Amino acid sequence: MSHAPTAALSVRHDYLRKAIAARGLDALVVTALPNILYLTNFTGSSAIAVVTPDRLYFITDFRYVTVMADARGTPHECPGLELVTVEGSYDVTLAAVLAPHARIGFEAAHLTVARHTWLTRTLHAAAAESSLSNQSAISNPQSVMRLLSTEHLVERLRVRKDEYEIATMREAAARLSAVATGVLTAVRRGETERDLALAIDVRIRQAGFERAAFDTIVASGPNAALPHARPGERTITEGDLVVLDFGGVYDSYCVDLSRTVVAGKADRRTREVYDAVLEARRSAIASVGPGRSRFEIDQAARGALEARGLGEAFGHGTGHGLGIEVHEDPRISRKRPDVDIQAPEVEPGMIFTIEPGAYLPGWGGVRIEDDVLVTDTGVDVLTDVTTELIEL
Amino acid sequence: MSHAPTAALSVRHDYLRKAIAARGLDALVVTALPNILYLTNFTGSSAIAVVTPDRLYFITDFRYVTVMADARGTPHECPGLELVTVEGSYDVTLAAVLAPHARIGFEAAHLTVARHTWLTRTLHAAAAESSLSNQSAISNPQSVMRLLSTEHLVERLRVRKDEYEIATMREAAARLSAVATGVLTAVRRGETERDLALAIDVRIRQAGFERAAFDTIVASGPNAALPHARPGERTITEGDLVVLDFGGVYDSYCVDLSRTVVAGKADRRTREVYDAVLEARRSAIASVGPGRSRFEIDQAARGALEARGLGEAFGHGTGHGLGIEVHEDPRISRKRPDVDIQAPEVEPGMIFTIEPGAYLPGWGGVRIEDDVLVTDTGVDVLTDVTTELIEL
Repeated sequence: MSHAPTAALSVRHDYLRKAIAARGLDALVVTALPNILYLTNFTGSSAIAVVTPDRLYFITDFRYVTVMADARGTPHECPGLELVTVEGSYDVTLAAVLAPHARIGFEAAHLTVARHTWLTRTLHAAAAESSLSNQSAISNPQSVMRLLSTEHLVERLRVRKDEYEIATMREAAARLSAVATGVLTAVRRGETERDLALAIDVRIRQAGFERAAFDTIVASGPNAALPHARPGERTITEGDLVVLDFGGVYDSYCVDLSRTVVAGKADRRTREVYDAVLEARRSAIASVGPGRSRFEIDQAARGALEARGLGEAFGHGTGHGLGIEVHEDPRISRKRPDVDIQAPEVEPGMIFTIEPGAYLPGWGGVRIEDDVLVTDTGVDVLTDVTTELIEL
Repeated sequence: MSHAPTAALSVRHDYLRKAIAARGLDALVVTALPNILYLTNFTGSSAIAVVTPDRLYFITDFRYVTVMADARGTPHECPGLELVTVEGSYDVTLAAVLAPHARIGFEAAHLTVARHTWLTRTLHAAAAESSLSNQSAISNPQSVMRLLSTEHLVERLRVRKDEYEIATMREAAARLSAVATGVLTAVRRGETERDLALAIDVRIRQAGFERAAFDTIVASGPNAALPHARPGERTITEGDLVVLDFGGVYDSYCVDLSRTVVAGKADRRTREVYDAVLEARRSAIASVGPGRSRFEIDQAARGALEARGLGEAFGHGTGHGLGIEVHEDPRISRKRPDVDIQAPEVEPGMIFTIEPGAYLPGWGGVRIEDDVLVTDTGVDVLTDVTTELIEL
């Protein structure tokens, strides 16, 4: 279980119920696990939540019934939660819970076509049967019971962190910064990428994280030119740039950090590229504040690299939101008119990475990444690790 | 990248193309990453494959282009792969690749409703535009271009492992068994669950696994009654049963193993429950063979526990398939007529867990888990760790 206070969960439920009411829904089926965690503190691997104007049904199977029952009476109890144990399958149980409801919203970005098709058929069959046994019911079950596509109802709430979440992520960022500082003084030439990645992962766990937030990246020499390289048997060698990118999950929340070091004395080109990425970081962070545009923040980083002839070397976005997921909204990137439907403005309570990089195939690469919080007046950098170029 | 030989990938493509032809499809869109890995050796986090009767388009973004290009000319190269770099978004790029095709299959168990809706609209709009500019084209674009629901086309191939996969998983199981044997001799009273879980994870990585296959379970005392407990600050104490359940990913393939130990001398009840679970394991493994039913194998374990009054204490299925995913088909469980549509028979090449357990709330629990391969003549137990009850 996660540890959001009951009062914080109540506020989240209230906001969600307003969104449900605004769409005229009788119920919302929440199938995405990060959204379920946000609403209930549940951290297991299987559940469905159904939120109605006045109820919250929580469907799970025998493996998780005890842990949910145990949460009752704790300060982290989910308010109003009604536990429904799966009989048969999740979707059969879900269909039974939904039966009394007519306008049912579902999460279109998460529900698969197969589950949607099954649920539609099952609900219509149930409604038809019930109208047969009830002469006064209207004859077309599809007009009685409908599955309605919704988008990002819970995600829209998650994007601005509440007080509890900010405190949790601030603590997580402090712990990850301590891990990073320790790693930067311990990394040695002659070590393999794989061994160094394992050493980082052990430090992450020893610092109180539940797990690494993603597979730790240790990319040395030419591998540093691959933004998502996997640590291998390569040994850190004189002259290498080494990109270290790692994160941790602390009480269900993700933080994420990168630094790049050089094995031996940095040559002129290395220092040029490093300084360009560092300037991109500075420029992007300086452009963060309430009401500023995500695209503008991205352009601040991109422009700094373009000015130094490294525009082409920066192929990914400047940052991504952090929270229950390691990649969530807001996306700090170039505007993509074809797919980007979210509002451009960043708002107080948003937490995201700033991670400019430069990747030069065959030569190597640099990435520097911090986590920032948008405040009422500007920006707060949650991670705190030296940005000096460390020469091993 | 994973390491299936090019010839093995060719065979997989041939089988898949037969399934595509049998359904009269012009193209199949593969969006599930484990399926993409199976077809191409790709181990990154974002890609789409489009398989046609004579082409294999592989859509990925700039982060993975280099690694895919580097695979060319290696013994693990994906045959016939045509690399398409994402422009704009994945789905925009996909729509362009699909434009020349009419009957397009998609994976209904994986594609979300939101992506399906977008793709349907986009393809129909493109078809309408193209028919406007071509007077001889028929007027209804929906009859020209159709997205057709498919289920488990690739999964059905994955369920029977090929020679390469069996060799890989045999090696993985041997390595995981060595880890388990080491853990069983090293576990000590006074250690916390969390510290022991970290020690296990370090051993898993040191044994050559890429990562743990899931969050390692160390459940002591009353926690052992929770099949999916999370390791916490509880210290292993005299009289505790301790369930250890862990797995590793070795060259993209998952193996999974559980043993239960007791801190101190086992009392009579502990030994009774342990022996019942051990008998369930023996009975289930004895019932595995080509053509045997999954439900029958499950019943073999369940019957052994029921005979000892522990039927109610065994709430989960007897086993699950292993492979690129840690939970895949076949499911060794009770028949659930409402959802279970797969064939009941197990076949040579299938690899799955046998993991009976007994969970007694407040008292504790026992689980014993091994990985088995169905052979042409019977069963081969891939994991090899003592099943004696170890008293710490």
